[in-house]
Formats: sequence, structure tokens, C-alpha cells
Amino acid sequence: MNPDTFAHTPEPPYFAVIFTSHHSGSDMKTYGTTSARMLKLAAMQDGFLGVESCRDTEGTGITVSYWRDEAAIQQWYRNLEHQHVQQKGRDRWYSAFQVRVARVERAYEFVQSDET
Amino acid sequence: MNPDTFAHTPEPPYFAVIFTSHHSGSDMKTYGTTSARMLKLAAMQDGFLGVESCRDTEGTGITVSYWRDEAAIQQWYRNLEHQHVQQKGRDRWYSAFQVRVARVERAYEFVQSDET
Repeated sequence: MNPDTFAHTPEPPYFAVIFTSHHSGSDMKTYGTTSARMLKLAAMQDGFLGVESCRDTEGTGITVSYWRDEAAIQQWYRNLEHQHVQQKGRDRWYSAFQVRVARVERAYEFVQSDET
Repeated sequence: MNPDTFAHTPEPPYFAVIFTSHHSGSDMKTYGTTSARMLKLAAMQDGFLGVESCRDTEGTGITVSYWRDEAAIQQWYRNLEHQHVQQKGRDRWYSAFQVRVARVERAYEFVQSDET
């Protein structure tokens, strides 16, 4: 199992940004490089707690990033490099997306005990 | 674009259950049938608002279901057929999962205007 599958978040409360998108399918190479760069840049922001992401073969993607508080989220959205990429996302990559900001109130996990 | 990519949720506030999982890879056929059945059953519950889901080729999946309130979420988790499937998920399908319950406080969307 990929150790990056799960974000190792602290006890709630904290915040989640749920980003659901449909990729147009164009310019996938630059998109891949830029996505990786954005994850790296996000992880450097004050208040970043982790991220979980997947994209299926039909172009649907869900990325959930976790943050200490609303202020940290707003600061990340105001980051200049991120703003530039957000614009490229609208112009070039995404046919549509939804963003939801939510306050995580409770959480639990399950790990298979006999996994080898 | 698949019209089911996005959940058509009302104005916030409402609740989200973020279910991040890693599939063991075993018993995929039954898993697929059961997942489809669970989505159908969830959609019949009082307070269900929608669902967004994706699974990548490496077994990571994120499903976010949206609910009117906490009571609706708890009722869904107590549904007997769902409880039975939750147990099968732990016993057979998932190597690990994380569940987070969050209150959606704001949301916005983008749709490409020149999409054909």
C-alpha cells in the first residue's frame, strides 16, 4: 500500500477542502508536473496538515487537503504561484470542478490487522 | 463528462462524510456489485444529498457523501444492510480506510463555458 494514500491528520477539529474535478484530458504532461509541484508547495504552507487524492481513468478526480484553520486555507488560495495555476486550471485543464470547505468534526480509521 | 461526477448539493451548511480507502484488490467483482448497491441504497435514505467517488488504478479510493445533518449520517450507518457491508469491507475488501465527518461551510463551482 502506498504510504501516501492517507493523510496523518491530528485530532479534530480541523478543516478540509474537498476539490472534485473533471479533467478535460488535454495537456496531461504539464498537468501532472504542475499537480506534483502544487502538492509540494501546499505542504510547505503554514497550517497544512495533509492531502489525499485520486483520479480515475475517466477523468474524475477528488483531492481533499486538510488545514489547521480557515486562515491557512485562505492564505494558500492567495499564494501567487497557486493563483497562477488556478487560472491555468480554469483555462486549460478542467472542464468543471466543485470546491467545498468543511470543518472536520470527527474521524476514525481502520487498518487491517493481518496485512503483510 | 459523466453527469454523475458531481453531487448537486444545496447551499451550505450540510455535512460530508469523507471516506478514503485502500482496496486490497481481492474479490473485486462482488465489491463492484456491492458498491453500486450501497450507492443506490444510500440515495434512498432520508437526508441524503449526493455522492462523489473515484478510485485510481493503484487501489486508492475517495468517496464523499453529502447529508443534510448528522442525524441522517448516523441513521445511514445504523442501516442493517449497510452495517453488514461495512463488516465485509473490514473483513475482505479494505486494507485500510479513514472516515471523516465534516460540516460543509462554503462551496463554489466552475464549469467551462466553451465546453462542447
